[in-house]
Amino acid sequence: MNQFFTEFHDKGTGIIFKIKRELFSAKSPYQEIKVFETETFGRMLVLDGLVMLTERDEFVYHEMLVHPAFSFKEQVKKAGVIGGGDGGTVREILKYPDVESVLLIEIDKMVVEVSERYLEFTSSRLKDERVSIYYEDGVKYLNERNERFDLLFVDSSDPVGPAVALYSLDFYKSIKKNLKDDGIVVFQSESPWYHLGVIKEQIKNLKRLFKEVKLYLAPVPTYPGGFWSFTIATDTELVVKRDYIPEGLKYYNKSIQEHLFALPEFIKNAIG
Amino acid sequence: MNQFFTEFHDKGTGIIFKIKRELFSAKSPYQEIKVFETETFGRMLVLDGLVMLTERDEFVYHEMLVHPAFSFKEQVKKAGVIGGGDGGTVREILKYPDVESVLLIEIDKMVVEVSERYLEFTSSRLKDERVSIYYEDGVKYLNERNERFDLLFVDSSDPVGPAVALYSLDFYKSIKKNLKDDGIVVFQSESPWYHLGVIKEQIKNLKRLFKEVKLYLAPVPTYPGGFWSFTIATDTELVVKRDYIPEGLKYYNKSIQEHLFALPEFIKNAIG
Repeated sequence: MNQFFTEFHDKGTGIIFKIKRELFSAKSPYQEIKVFETETFGRMLVLDGLVMLTERDEFVYHEMLVHPAFSFKEQVKKAGVIGGGDGGTVREILKYPDVESVLLIEIDKMVVEVSERYLEFTSSRLKDERVSIYYEDGVKYLNERNERFDLLFVDSSDPVGPAVALYSLDFYKSIKKNLKDDGIVVFQSESPWYHLGVIKEQIKNLKRLFKEVKLYLAPVPTYPGGFWSFTIATDTELVVKRDYIPEGLKYYNKSIQEHLFALPEFIKNAIG
Repeated sequence: MNQFFTEFHDKGTGIIFKIKRELFSAKSPYQEIKVFETETFGRMLVLDGLVMLTERDEFVYHEMLVHPAFSFKEQVKKAGVIGGGDGGTVREILKYPDVESVLLIEIDKMVVEVSERYLEFTSSRLKDERVSIYYEDGVKYLNERNERFDLLFVDSSDPVGPAVALYSLDFYKSIKKNLKDDGIVVFQSESPWYHLGVIKEQIKNLKRLFKEVKLYLAPVPTYPGGFWSFTIATDTELVVKRDYIPEGLKYYNKSIQEHLFALPEFIKNAIG
């Protein structure tokens, strides 16, 4: 007998996975957490019914969240990650030898525990000595601190449940307060096919606070529409300042770097 | 009561659509043809159980099949389309005033008839005086002729059913015979997530016949993995020779043109 998992992206369209078995299922204080072994995409993490990552395609999302920002910085000593308890973003950050410390601020300890147990491909570097994990609300954490990050990555889940506050102007202000003057923040910013309104709103708000705000795109087959966006914001110029690209990447390369900000006409027009 | 249409891309993953109603369903001598009104993607054409196009996203596929090749030609007098009975490719070709004739070679007359009746958004230009439609097997047609096309577009369905022969070396030889010396052929070439082997094989075979063979990509949310590939082959150089881009396009623009051949590392490595 076959078992299927379906995620609807809107009221009419979704993605369906054949499931070999459910490896984990529980409710944390924040959300429902499930891990499946899928038929063709390897292991899959699902939060509140939404696909967060699969073993087969997570490399695109994590590489594209992290590496473009590093290309725009000569040196990065201190990096932060909001969300991202699966560890994939931290794994990519640690590929740069100049990084001295990475702070992971994840609200839900169970996500980290489940990832360490079932998702070794993303969580493998969470025990690195350069990494500190804070189990706190990212909004509250940044409000109360002044961390002076070189780079900050907002690796949030979709704007439902615990992640809603991560799309507010107040949160963007707290981010700015915690960045060095030449710091850069990168947000995962949802699907251009399903959430163009969210993207537009986010860019509008970020432009009130930062001099440079740009969108870029990458294909992630298990995310809504198979195509994802990232938003990068900073008060410095977004020009390539580092030639080094870590070895062994599967998506990001020199050619992707050079063409990062090429946008299709309908997206360019939508975000103005 | 809700009705759903599901297409599986491999044995474990698929896309699911909520259907408002079925507008058409019949078996032609070649394939099963269905037209649905979907909940969120407008009208949808399905051949042998596979999504061929939807009203909401067909613009990406048709623009990206057609416009890059036009950018590489100063002038195009005669263009051909193999398959493409829905008319979307012809619609894009006719946006260039230098085009004098377009030959559409479609094996299945019922696809054209159904498209003219239900898919006005793609078929609207099939009655243009510059268009001639031949209801013939594209392989046989090209074998027996010597058309000297400036541009030829292989707008085939997936390599199952009537389209299998469109992926053979013999077919590529017939194409070359029907192109001018500086002619260009463009193939839709399947999903890099699901059919990387097909892509690799096609490029290897085309390189035996043409001096320049290149792959490029575009996001189509209702195709497998939401990401699609196109292969362009010619004996001339693939450099931009035409600045004109038709007005009103929703995907293709100058910026996409400049960055057309940027490929992710895993795809670059796969195709060599």
